[in-house]
Amino acid sequence: MALKLEIAQEMLLAAVAVMPVERQPLAHCWQRVLAETVIADIDFPPFDRSPLDGYAVIATEVEQARPDAPVRLRQIENIAAGSVARESVRPGTACRIMTGAPIPPGATGVIRLEDTAVDGDIVSIMAGAGAAKNICRRGEEIATGEVILTAGTVINAGAMGMLAVLGKAEPLVYVRPRVALIATGSELIAVDEPLVPGKIRNSNSYMLSAQVQEAGAQARLLGVAGDDVDAIAELVEYAADCDVCITTGGASVGDYDLIGEVFKKLGVKVLFERVSIKPGMPVLAGVKENKLFIGLSGNPAAASISFEQLVRPVLLKMSGRTNWWRPCVKARLAAPFGKSTGAKRFVWARCWQGEAGLLAEPLSLQGNGMLKSAIAANALVVIPENSPPLPAGTEVEVILLVNG
Amino acid sequence: MALKLEIAQEMLLAAVAVMPVERQPLAHCWQRVLAETVIADIDFPPFDRSPLDGYAVIATEVEQARPDAPVRLRQIENIAAGSVARESVRPGTACRIMTGAPIPPGATGVIRLEDTAVDGDIVSIMAGAGAAKNICRRGEEIATGEVILTAGTVINAGAMGMLAVLGKAEPLVYVRPRVALIATGSELIAVDEPLVPGKIRNSNSYMLSAQVQEAGAQARLLGVAGDDVDAIAELVEYAADCDVCITTGGASVGDYDLIGEVFKKLGVKVLFERVSIKPGMPVLAGVKENKLFIGLSGNPAAASISFEQLVRPVLLKMSGRTNWWRPCVKARLAAPFGKSTGAKRFVWARCWQGEAGLLAEPLSLQGNGMLKSAIAANALVVIPENSPPLPAGTEVEVILLVNG
Repeated sequence: MALKLEIAQEMLLAAVAVMPVERQPLAHCWQRVLAETVIADIDFPPFDRSPLDGYAVIATEVEQARPDAPVRLRQIENIAAGSVARESVRPGTACRIMTGAPIPPGATGVIRLEDTAVDGDIVSIMAGAGAAKNICRRGEEIATGEVILTAGTVINAGAMGMLAVLGKAEPLVYVRPRVALIATGSELIAVDEPLVPGKIRNSNSYMLSAQVQEAGAQARLLGVAGDDVDAIAELVEYAADCDVCITTGGASVGDYDLIGEVFKKLGVKVLFERVSIKPGMPVLAGVKENKLFIGLSGNPAAASISFEQLVRPVLLKMSGRTNWWRPCVKARLAAPFGKSTGAKRFVWARCWQGEAGLLAEPLSLQGNGMLKSAIAANALVVIPENSPPLPAGTEVEVILLVNG
Repeated sequence: MALKLEIAQEMLLAAVAVMPVERQPLAHCWQRVLAETVIADIDFPPFDRSPLDGYAVIATEVEQARPDAPVRLRQIENIAAGSVARESVRPGTACRIMTGAPIPPGATGVIRLEDTAVDGDIVSIMAGAGAAKNICRRGEEIATGEVILTAGTVINAGAMGMLAVLGKAEPLVYVRPRVALIATGSELIAVDEPLVPGKIRNSNSYMLSAQVQEAGAQARLLGVAGDDVDAIAELVEYAADCDVCITTGGASVGDYDLIGEVFKKLGVKVLFERVSIKPGMPVLAGVKENKLFIGLSGNPAAASISFEQLVRPVLLKMSGRTNWWRPCVKARLAAPFGKSTGAKRFVWARCWQGEAGLLAEPLSLQGNGMLKSAIAANALVVIPENSPPLPAGTEVEVILLVNG
């Protein structure tokens, strides 16, 4: 019995826990998942500061200043960025101030340099209205006590900057799940071996290693095992330090059912054996001691789609992310999909914005040319179960192959 | 004079060359840019093969087979995947065959196991129509001599699989550009230093390091220099092994114009000093000996947008990519943008698909809360030059912050 996709997804998500946490130098944290709630322990800016080069003044003294009626003030000091004023601004005085420098005590506005002229220690203010606006107020961006970032956030460029502002030199992040990849099949040789009759190269491990990394996890390629339970079991045991162990090949019933025997041998408890999707129906999933074992089909299209639908959400959950799903949109088929569909089907597609909305063009009707389709695709069209052939223009659900 | 954005982009793109190439183990090639045209030197599959477990037969012999009128054949051998048949299939015989195994000589079809029954060395074929379809033909996916991947392709999961199929154990890829990041400003301290009055932490280098990595390049954080030409020049010289050197701060005229002086001191030829965009107008760009020097504003919003608009396309070109631009779509403003605009303006936004098409909500009117906007944004709204305040519902161009 093939399980409904949504039920299989729920079973896998329920079977895994979020990874432990570690501290990492901030410079290495891009795209990592934050494992702590970051609460501001400072105001930012930490002091009233000048957003430009100019003169700090008492705003009411210069309000009426115009080029033909300048207000003359005595310059008292020059505050460089990073310095603090020694004197207060008193009536009749102004203080030269640099971008980023703290506003001196007494000053209530800043006049930009372009609106001033200097003669000795006298500065003429040519335009004074709005001087008060030229102060970036302490706490304007961030207030002490504010929740700034929550655990589960994927650290992007803005978050990197924010963590730096708050002095988080070593943020707490989730450890990236380690995923072992084992290819099985006596027809397989390694990518650098010479091709001999009857053999093909192991490509699934490389394709899946990219999908693992795209999900933010670490891939460990453990190589190839022939169609032999002991040989496969040995490699699977070698993956003991990984959090998830994925095999390809030998997963469909009849296909020797090798992976089922490997599970039995190693005491892996089977969760399910088949999922009702195309391609990718044979998926043997099991758990043992909080570790997930996934037997995918040896067919590249099936392995890739099963991974996308079943393993990727699990890796995102383990990684500590809070959103486990790709963005989904509605689009119209740019070309007919000529095949009737029993189990829910996922079809590689190119999606783009046409004049009248989003369009999606299915890239292949068959498994043939599968890798070519996977190379060109930026989306998956979802064909609902029990669909007739669909004409061009049919509205379909489209999964965008970007992060959500 | 501020340069038009498109002209500044063209000048920078013209000033840089594509990086040299290197070979990398395939397992490390995900997201790298391919530097060779890959032409298939094999057919794939390399032989006619069985897509399922079953019996290889002479198709015409079993065409009429039905459960109530089976065709009986003598089983001659069992071809495992990875093996080659020793015998030919002759009239009256069938050959057990595993998924992925080569079709034996003489056979013209495969019957799936489910449609057969075995008794000793006699196999009964219960359904025989369409047996010929159960053969994956040699060269069906890839034909020898076919151009499979072109230089400039970003290696995704499909391409990883394809390169493995073709035995490219060490593909030729472009070296990733190395980008030095130097923060300047006497108000800056390192992220792990204690905050003292008048100081703020260097956040720009961390924010930009993420943007550099997102563009596929390598970031080298060289730390902070005060507002001192010699100190900055020393750090810039320290970046000699990098391909691009980016400073933040000291770039606007009046702001001491420190970076201009650094360029003069080091013999960097200035390309331009200001670009007509907001935020991010002050951008000092120069070249010396095929190396690019970019002085960005110290204001985080300005630095980030200038990088996105001017540096990112350059890094993509240097990386060997053929498409240097983000995907652009049309969307309607989900909220008014209340500010009139002189120079072309870029506003962080959230973009999503509403009932009647794409919507984009600007995340901030001011520089205030800039990092919060950058954290939440998945798009940039483009406000054309000389625009009045725009009401909600206005159609705008939106740059999606994903790879194109």
